Amino acid sequence: MALTARVKEILSWYPSDNPGVKTNLARLMNTGRLAGTGKLVILPVDQGFEHGPDRSFGPNPPSFDPDYHYQLAVEAGCNAYAAPLGFLEATAGKFAGEIPLILKLNNSDVLEELEPRSALTSTVKDAVRLGCSAVGYTIYPGSKERNLAFQDLRDLIREAKEYGLPTVLWAYPRGAGLPKASEQAVDVIAYAAQISAQMGAHVIKVKPPTNVVHTKEAKAVYEKAGTKIDTLADRVRIAVRGAFNGHRIVIFSGGEAKDTPSVLEDVKQIAAGGGFGSIMGRNAFQRPKDEAVKLLHSVMDTFTAK
Amino acid sequence: MALTARVKEILSWYPSDNPGVKTNLARLMNTGRLAGTGKLVILPVDQGFEHGPDRSFGPNPPSFDPDYHYQLAVEAGCNAYAAPLGFLEATAGKFAGEIPLILKLNNSDVLEELEPRSALTSTVKDAVRLGCSAVGYTIYPGSKERNLAFQDLRDLIREAKEYGLPTVLWAYPRGAGLPKASEQAVDVIAYAAQISAQMGAHVIKVKPPTNVVHTKEAKAVYEKAGTKIDTLADRVRIAVRGAFNGHRIVIFSGGEAKDTPSVLEDVKQIAAGGGFGSIMGRNAFQRPKDEAVKLLHSVMDTFTAK
Amino acid sequence: MALTARVKEILSWYPSDNPGVKTNLARLMNTGRLAGTGKLVILPVDQGFEHGPDRSFGPNPPSFDPDYHYQLAVEAGCNAYAAPLGFLEATAGKFAGEIPLILKLNNSDVLEELEPRSALTSTVKDAVRLGCSAVGYTIYPGSKERNLAFQDLRDLIREAKEYGLPTVLWAYPRGAGLPKASEQAVDVIAYAAQISAQMGAHVIKVKPPTNVVHTKEAKAVYEKAGTKIDTLADRVRIAVRGAFNGHRIVIFSGGEAKDTPSVLEDVKQIAAGGGFGSIMGRNAFQRPKDEAVKLLHSVMDTFTAK
Amino acid sequence: MALTARVKEILSWYPSDNPGVKTNLARLMNTGRLAGTGKLVILPVDQGFEHGPDRSFGPNPPSFDPDYHYQLAVEAGCNAYAAPLGFLEATAGKFAGEIPLILKLNNSDVLEELEPRSALTSTVKDAVRLGCSAVGYTIYPGSKERNLAFQDLRDLIREAKEYGLPTVLWAYPRGAGLPKASEQAVDVIAYAAQISAQMGAHVIKVKPPTNVVHTKEAKAVYEKAGTKIDTLADRVRIAVRGAFNGHRIVIFSGGEAKDTPSVLEDVKQIAAGGGFGSIMGRNAFQRPKDEAVKLLHSVMDTFTAK
Amino acid sequence: MALTARVKEILSWYPSDNPGVKTNLARLMNTGRLAGTGKLVILPVDQGFEHGPDRSFGPNPPSFDPDYHYQLAVEAGCNAYAAPLGFLEATAGKFAGEIPLILKLNNSDVLEELEPRSALTSTVKDAVRLGCSAVGYTIYPGSKERNLAFQDLRDLIREAKEYGLPTVLWAYPRGAGLPKASEQAVDVIAYAAQISAQMGAHVIKVKPPTNVVHTKEAKAVYEKAGTKIDTLADRVRIAVRGAFNGHRIVIFSGGEAKDTPSVLEDVKQIAAGGGFGSIMGRNAFQRPKDEAVKLLHSVMDTFTAK
Repeated sequence: MALTARVKEILSWYPSDNPGVKTNLARLMNTGRLAGTGKLVILPVDQGFEHGPDRSFGPNPPSFDPDYHYQLAVEAGCNAYAAPLGFLEATAGKFAGEIPLILKLNNSDVLEELEPRSALTSTVKDAVRLGCSAVGYTIYPGSKERNLAFQDLRDLIREAKEYGLPTVLWAYPRGAGLPKASEQAVDVIAYAAQISAQMGAHVIKVKPPTNVVHTKEAKAVYEKAGTKIDTLADRVRIAVRGAFNGHRIVIFSGGEAKDTPSVLEDVKQIAAGGGFGSIMGRNAFQRPKDEAVKLLHSVMDTFTAK
Repeated sequence: MALTARVKEILSWYPSDNPGVKTNLARLMNTGRLAGTGKLVILPVDQGFEHGPDRSFGPNPPSFDPDYHYQLAVEAGCNAYAAPLGFLEATAGKFAGEIPLILKLNNSDVLEELEPRSALTSTVKDAVRLGCSAVGYTIYPGSKERNLAFQDLRDLIREAKEYGLPTVLWAYPRGAGLPKASEQAVDVIAYAAQISAQMGAHVIKVKPPTNVVHTKEAKAVYEKAGTKIDTLADRVRIAVRGAFNGHRIVIFSGGEAKDTPSVLEDVKQIAAGGGFGSIMGRNAFQRPKDEAVKLLHSVMDTFTAK
Repeated sequence: MALTARVKEILSWYPSDNPGVKTNLARLMNTGRLAGTGKLVILPVDQGFEHGPDRSFGPNPPSFDPDYHYQLAVEAGCNAYAAPLGFLEATAGKFAGEIPLILKLNNSDVLEELEPRSALTSTVKDAVRLGCSAVGYTIYPGSKERNLAFQDLRDLIREAKEYGLPTVLWAYPRGAGLPKASEQAVDVIAYAAQISAQMGAHVIKVKPPTNVVHTKEAKAVYEKAGTKIDTLADRVRIAVRGAFNGHRIVIFSGGEAKDTPSVLEDVKQIAAGGGFGSIMGRNAFQRPKDEAVKLLHSVMDTFTAK
Repeated sequence: MALTARVKEILSWYPSDNPGVKTNLARLMNTGRLAGTGKLVILPVDQGFEHGPDRSFGPNPPSFDPDYHYQLAVEAGCNAYAAPLGFLEATAGKFAGEIPLILKLNNSDVLEELEPRSALTSTVKDAVRLGCSAVGYTIYPGSKERNLAFQDLRDLIREAKEYGLPTVLWAYPRGAGLPKASEQAVDVIAYAAQISAQMGAHVIKVKPPTNVVHTKEAKAVYEKAGTKIDTLADRVRIAVRGAFNGHRIVIFSGGEAKDTPSVLEDVKQIAAGGGFGSIMGRNAFQRPKDEAVKLLHSVMDTFTAK
Repeated sequence: MALTARVKEILSWYPSDNPGVKTNLARLMNTGRLAGTGKLVILPVDQGFEHGPDRSFGPNPPSFDPDYHYQLAVEAGCNAYAAPLGFLEATAGKFAGEIPLILKLNNSDVLEELEPRSALTSTVKDAVRLGCSAVGYTIYPGSKERNLAFQDLRDLIREAKEYGLPTVLWAYPRGAGLPKASEQAVDVIAYAAQISAQMGAHVIKVKPPTNVVHTKEAKAVYEKAGTKIDTLADRVRIAVRGAFNGHRIVIFSGGEAKDTPSVLEDVKQIAAGGGFGSIMGRNAFQRPKDEAVKLLHSVMDTFTAK
């Protein structure tokens, strides 16, 4: 499929990347129901590792099966499917090539809750071997071990580029440096997006920012400039601006499972604020498959509504 | 020996692995009295390192000798024999090829009881040199250093695959994050099985789950779905489901030495719950050899009983 | 452009470096309005990472865009533009070759304030790939982890030399070993300059020294020799002397944004004390672009005023 | 010299080792007055590093000289001489080939008494370069950092094997996990011998066990089986049994310098209990050389007495 | 210049070293006014890094310049000049070959006073690139991190040998394990010399020992043997004996700057006790150059006085 003008424009923001990386970025944007729009809806399923299987898959038992998620992502017309090594090992060799895959390179579990730092659970070479189109990684800005995680990320981004793979970065401010209420503060989310972009991430995933402002310096700047933070759309705009004035792909998560109207209202605001898409896990796979497909279609439609 | 339909089915769950890994998985399933059934009974003897020699081998003095265990595994018709480096060095060059070997790559002793983490005591290349069919590794989900162990595991699984060796993972939830009573909680065991599968383990060894439920989230899911946890068979079913809906080989340990009827009752429940087999150490080698062979045969028969 | 006598003299202070390193040092000195003078004014923009985007770029919203800074450095006739990986990735491939680039190899954020140590955020090979003329690195003499940072620096300087890249070192005394008031003490700044030079840095960036003297030994030496520390020019002289008696390029930062007369007064003193130039971030990019260009030109003129 | 039946038998216990390792094990057993008997008396001189030179060599000043020890080992007809790098550097190139050498790869000093862990002070490649026949290493089972030391040992044993060098392991239970009185407890010594053998050591050196029993589990096993621990010979038998039922070479140290009858009484018990030999440092080199040679001959005679 | 008998004798103490190492050891001994005597006077200038520039060079301002020290060493007829990377970078390419250089591979500053451990500040390959004749390294026996430093040293000595470079070891007992008064205790200095020799150092630099005896074991040995520790010459004899009975080159530092008669009295005692030379920094470069040359000549004369 030929690139649309919008996809070409987005790719132009990555002028220093090699053709391999651009090719895979284009693959992510040229797949599924949103192909060519420059918008993305991605299905991520790492909750089995991150929260445990019963809590994650128990509400919809067919989802215990790795095949289920791969097929849901394909059937719903997502841009990509992201998961840890095991889920991709179980499916990549079977459904090879039906949808771009993102291998999550690190993961964290909740059996012991330390200052947050994910374990490295797979490698860039695994992503290559499994035919993935990108690698994924999680950082916790504000945590004590963030610097070590940044250094690992530095090396992984470099290695991934050597194989033509872009990096999708999950940026979750959290840890000793931040009170709970500041984890989604609008200035903190914008800061996390900036750090992600400066580290060289190609796609940045953050949580929807709240109207909390964590630092007095940001507060003063907002006040002086009359920057609005009232609606989610306002705040999404600040987060996207934080990622090189919107010249990096920033997508937003949905968080805990909730009802359909709430999900769609959030998405509408994200779209209005200039967000590039959504990454939706529990709200998708914890519903029966036909409902999930319907919801994901509605989300996609929201991003392309005029 | 040609592959049975069941062995072929099990191998189909590993579609992304190379032929070398599948060949060795097939070797494990095509050996001994259970060959071709898709069930496994493995003799593991790492207690000399883990608990000390007198306590482990003193009850049956011939078992101080490394030859004893290799021969017991062969005579009982086990699928494989698993041990640390020293025991395999002492026997592999002498009885070369009589049974598939699993080299335990890490081990822990009890002379100093830290937050649990095993020492790396041998390498994948040792396994290759000694003609092994798989490597073994132990993780302690819930412990403080689990992330470092996961990272080591990531590297070892990758290296083992390069040599065509599958990985057998001992998953023992334990450590600062878990009260003693939760170490075998059914949701925790299922979580450990999930982590193991997501890390890329081919065979997962867990302890039989108890009827404790550690997390309130899992409890709520069980209640809502009417998931039963009353019998060991019920709980084995949950553990097996946690490992990709039963699409990974999950086997169960027996724990401390006990009388034959208790052992067999446990095994019956494990078989009824869909467990893929047993790994039985002390209950085997602390009995006189003829009794041990008899017990292991009974265990095998239980797994194939209609 | 042929080398001036002054540039040749400065290059003669680096007799053990290879021609590649000298070539890039010459590039830094042969660029922009100060070309050939042996003086340097560099635009550094790492505040998005170090302080966050809203606080840094909010006062002048066009500066959220990476293109803005590259273009500001070019338009103002700076010797070089220094930034972290992301900003250079976003511009190097687009404006290739318009100004020498310095890739900042490490960075620190303020979301969690530990004993200071920067994360390694990019590599020497990134600098090579992006066509940079030098690498940048930050050390915190006086901090607990300084030795590990020195060791990383040792390796990076060596690697950079292999690619013909000189190293620009940001030396900020800070951390457990130093009271706040001593961070810019004149003897401490001179000590930081000495450490930087002994580590093999080619260009050393320090803060303007205050009239605090941190150690009694330095105080005694100053008193005995009648060394003056009253004016900033006096103290700059001590700092420059600390870097091999002025035989290393030492440049000074401006610190927080302030009004134009204050900035220029500082620069006048720096020039009078023998400083080799200024590195000016917030005072440049937080002003509207035309004002920033004007200010930078005034700074440059100050360094070449007779 | 052709191998005796006993040496051949001992070599048969190492069926997985390559001919290079077996050749060097044979060299250790085919040297000196005990050649061919399968018994070994080794001179180890690491006390200069471990305890300091004055305390170690002051009682017999000629022993300050590295030549002294090499020559003592040769003159006494020992099987091998073991020392740290410096002592072997000073002698190996001068007396090349007069006796098999064992290079101690790690050492600990007493100027700072931390939780015990030895520093790595030389390498396997040094042993190769110096013409050694084996490498030596010390572990402290029961100490907090034992796992890191085990991991280093794993790598060193592998590397040594690649050069055909066997490993002699000094196993000293000690550290936070063990009360002082348990450091030579019979069950603990047997456990240390087991760990050593499981790690892949070819020759294991332990201290003579006392009649303390550290763990209740071992006590129960001894009582049930009627295992005697009254005499040193009884306890040596338990230690040797702990090393693969006597199928690893286990030798015993003498400890602090004492009078000749006490030394010989100990050796008699060690021989009676099935010990494979003695490693005797201070009791040898702190005596005048002629007395030392005489004592060592008596020790050797004790091991071959009928 | 042909080797003298004494230089040949000293080289014979290093029988296991390769010709490259011996050649460079010979270069150190065949240079300057003491050429051929087997005695050495070395100029070390690392105080800029270790104590700061103002305190070190302020008393004699020309010494801020790197050229000054190189030239002082040449003019005084020293055997070698030792300095950190920066000072050698600034001079080696300019005065190539006028005197043997020793590159200090690690350094420590006093801005933060942790338990002592030096940072690695340059590499063996830097020494090779700069045409050095040896590498230098500092250890702190008695400090908490000594073992890590020993391990680094192990690797550096090996690497240096591969390039034919001997190692000069600065051994300063210091840290948590030692009270201040014991840092130069005679038994501690002898112990430090022993550790240095056992690690494989070729030239060992210690401080002049005091008449403190730190350990009761050494005290008992001295008393029993009637070992005298009254004069500095007595104590130097013990230190030299501790380094393989005088078969390693042991040189002594002068410590803080003091008046000429005191310096020369110390040197006389060092020479009388069998010391191989002096390493003299502050007492040399903090004097005007002509006085420094005169002092160094007097020191050299003392070592060769009959």
